Amino acid sequence: MEEKIPYKIYLEESEMPKQWYNVRADMKVKPAPLLNPGTGQPLKAEEMCGIFCEELVKQELDNDTKFFDIPEEVRNFYKMYRPSPLVHATFLEKALGTPAKIYYKFEGNNTSGSHKLNSAIAQVYYAKKQGLKGVTTETGAGQWGTALSMACQYFGLDCKVYMVKCSYEQKPFRREVIRTFGADIVPSPSDTTEVGRKILAEHPGTTGSLGCAISEAVEVAVTNEGYRYELGSVLNQVLLHQSIIGLETQAALKKYGIKPDILIGCTGGGSNLGGFAAPFLGEMLRGEANYKIIGAEPASCPSFTRGVYAYDFCDTGMICPLAKMYTIGSQFIPSANHAGGLRFHGMSPILSELYHQGLFEARAYEQTAVFDAAVTFAHAEGILPAPESSHAIRAAIDEALKCKETGEEKTIVFNLSGTGNFDLYAYKQFNEGTMTDSIPTDEEIQEALSKLPKVE
Amino acid sequence: MEEKIPYKIYLEESEMPKQWYNVRADMKVKPAPLLNPGTGQPLKAEEMCGIFCEELVKQELDNDTKFFDIPEEVRNFYKMYRPSPLVHATFLEKALGTPAKIYYKFEGNNTSGSHKLNSAIAQVYYAKKQGLKGVTTETGAGQWGTALSMACQYFGLDCKVYMVKCSYEQKPFRREVIRTFGADIVPSPSDTTEVGRKILAEHPGTTGSLGCAISEAVEVAVTNEGYRYELGSVLNQVLLHQSIIGLETQAALKKYGIKPDILIGCTGGGSNLGGFAAPFLGEMLRGEANYKIIGAEPASCPSFTRGVYAYDFCDTGMICPLAKMYTIGSQFIPSANHAGGLRFHGMSPILSELYHQGLFEARAYEQTAVFDAAVTFAHAEGILPAPESSHAIRAAIDEALKCKETGEEKTIVFNLSGTGNFDLYAYKQFNEGTMTDSIPTDEEIQEALSKLPKVE
Repeated sequence: MEEKIPYKIYLEESEMPKQWYNVRADMKVKPAPLLNPGTGQPLKAEEMCGIFCEELVKQELDNDTKFFDIPEEVRNFYKMYRPSPLVHATFLEKALGTPAKIYYKFEGNNTSGSHKLNSAIAQVYYAKKQGLKGVTTETGAGQWGTALSMACQYFGLDCKVYMVKCSYEQKPFRREVIRTFGADIVPSPSDTTEVGRKILAEHPGTTGSLGCAISEAVEVAVTNEGYRYELGSVLNQVLLHQSIIGLETQAALKKYGIKPDILIGCTGGGSNLGGFAAPFLGEMLRGEANYKIIGAEPASCPSFTRGVYAYDFCDTGMICPLAKMYTIGSQFIPSANHAGGLRFHGMSPILSELYHQGLFEARAYEQTAVFDAAVTFAHAEGILPAPESSHAIRAAIDEALKCKETGEEKTIVFNLSGTGNFDLYAYKQFNEGTMTDSIPTDEEIQEALSKLPKVE
Repeated sequence: MEEKIPYKIYLEESEMPKQWYNVRADMKVKPAPLLNPGTGQPLKAEEMCGIFCEELVKQELDNDTKFFDIPEEVRNFYKMYRPSPLVHATFLEKALGTPAKIYYKFEGNNTSGSHKLNSAIAQVYYAKKQGLKGVTTETGAGQWGTALSMACQYFGLDCKVYMVKCSYEQKPFRREVIRTFGADIVPSPSDTTEVGRKILAEHPGTTGSLGCAISEAVEVAVTNEGYRYELGSVLNQVLLHQSIIGLETQAALKKYGIKPDILIGCTGGGSNLGGFAAPFLGEMLRGEANYKIIGAEPASCPSFTRGVYAYDFCDTGMICPLAKMYTIGSQFIPSANHAGGLRFHGMSPILSELYHQGLFEARAYEQTAVFDAAVTFAHAEGILPAPESSHAIRAAIDEALKCKETGEEKTIVFNLSGTGNFDLYAYKQFNEGTMTDSIPTDEEIQEALSKLPKVE
């Protein structure tokens, strides 16, 4: 007999995963390698070591090792906010009147407000281990910058965060959290870097972009002795660290004999779905199980649903390596929307290859429909979700409502990757009915895709 | 043998308290009754029922019933965010280099951001049960207004929140959370009430006060059919509901055989310390144990440490009942500080009587020392604490540092009542070194105390 399922399932400390899972090891066709944009050849470890820590470069390039030990120091830090609960959303089920069973893994219960901390602490640990002085990064919505500042504070490393200028100005409170954790935070473009000064000279009134902030952070990392650059999504190493979400979810489900039918995560660069779904995708790759897995993306930046699978730059500035991925073009400028964490033109190479292989499906959602789901969820479950995570909520609610029509008792599990406590300007627009959607035209996407780099 | 103590202790659902504990039942000398300010006589149930729900009036007046069943509907809601963890603050211990064992009960892990939800959901439940249409309240810092809006959304009641105008303007995001949960929120003083219009006419530029907001909320409750007023602190009923914090703490400590020496909570109106410490005070009253219990209050509003134990009005407007309590005078206007939730001239009558009996001690802390403790805590334990709660952190750190000097391994348990995610303007001031302290002079306090009402 199964035990009664509690509203919130917490793993015991002793049940916590001690290794990260590398889904690449179970892929017959591996994700395509990153290419050096100058030579068009796969990036070698020695080319990456000037930018990233050595241990992280190894993780980035390793397509074969199935499990990586989580260092004890990282597991110690995880204890502060992990295990995160797997919640049986009985209040939402009731509000929807659905026979479906809905569960969500809640990754927002930490001060950074999202799952980003899982990889930040790992990346900073390896930087510390390598004897570095500090790390640099960019941040848009702010979750990643907050996470990295917390991790650097913990390990005693310098942290320099380039924050997209419009976010820096619109989110003074997010900025203040980062500063409270001791990081140096600079609005980008800035006059602290060559690339920043160049952009400022060419576009004096610009409010910045992620592409520009990445360029500045990378410049500082490669030109300062003892510094490296760290990134919060897209990369293989990030998905590896984020597998902790999926492994905990899997353990919690097994503990109570719950078999999921549908798994859902939102997708921007892929850190969230890629981590949450990894062990389930692994089961599918090994032929052990079959799940319906859904990536939920914004209609304003629809890499999976309207992009192509091709080599492209990871940044707008075209200084980063080329990745083979679903992309709507590195020159595509998504319209301003409130899910800043999902506003990225490309996608994790791992997820891209798995999507290409047909292992999961993707759906694009408009902003107002997403906030409508967010408020329904907040009223029922008492948590104010992040705009990004609310894409997954929208998909979960739609699936649950389908079950209501058909009478099926499917089990839906989604990842609630963060809270919306710093996104209240967006909720204000929604509450006041002034929120708009904006969907790129086919012409706009074709225009951006016409500028893809030529490879081979 | 004791089990190894995990970093976070969670009770199982089956271990959750099913009753609230009424510390008054164990008091030989009971707290003094509320008085009708017109007659000077103890308030009768029938006089209170126009303002409060009937069931809550019973709880307010009941000095003898030791345990009250927590209604099933309330326990269901508690499941959403309770049990809250009791955390073994090993990272803070290490940062301080103290032999003391430090634990904190973390009440901030819910969308309202504090312990206020524990009483809000109970109060709204009884309003619903009585068939009321809605409830009114005031809010200063915003936690209580958020909690009440969440509770009203859950039970489908109207909620009208009068928010002190300066907070309304300074905390647009806090306001937006309240609005997202469906409450009607009005900056006070407003032209929606007689008392509001009167104040606006007399003081056209005023940015409001808690006293004024209370007056408006009470006026709306008593002049509208089907409405009642609800209050988030001070009252006996509130301390009853908040005993859930102490009961869970006690159960978690017992589960691992941990014996506390020192218990600490911050004090504004008393809901936090009064709930957290209740079962421990009960043990002391019954002669079963002895603890050092500390109430931590702001030096800018020092009711316990510099006030008198006397009858006073609960509000600045002098329309509310008289309570016998530690007070620095209802006409005392504390200087603006960032712990809005502690800026109340008086104190819970229950805590006042227990303090008078010598069952616990109180300490007053200056704002900058409090934020210094807050940042130390955030860096060590990864949680950004509320300014209010940081008073308790200050006291806990001071006690732990004393242990470092003496080498004693005392066990310190404090209540971390909330998070500072909506208090970042305060952190900004602290980070930039522009935060100031302000301590009332003896003359200012004497002046306010000279206006205490004459009773007997």
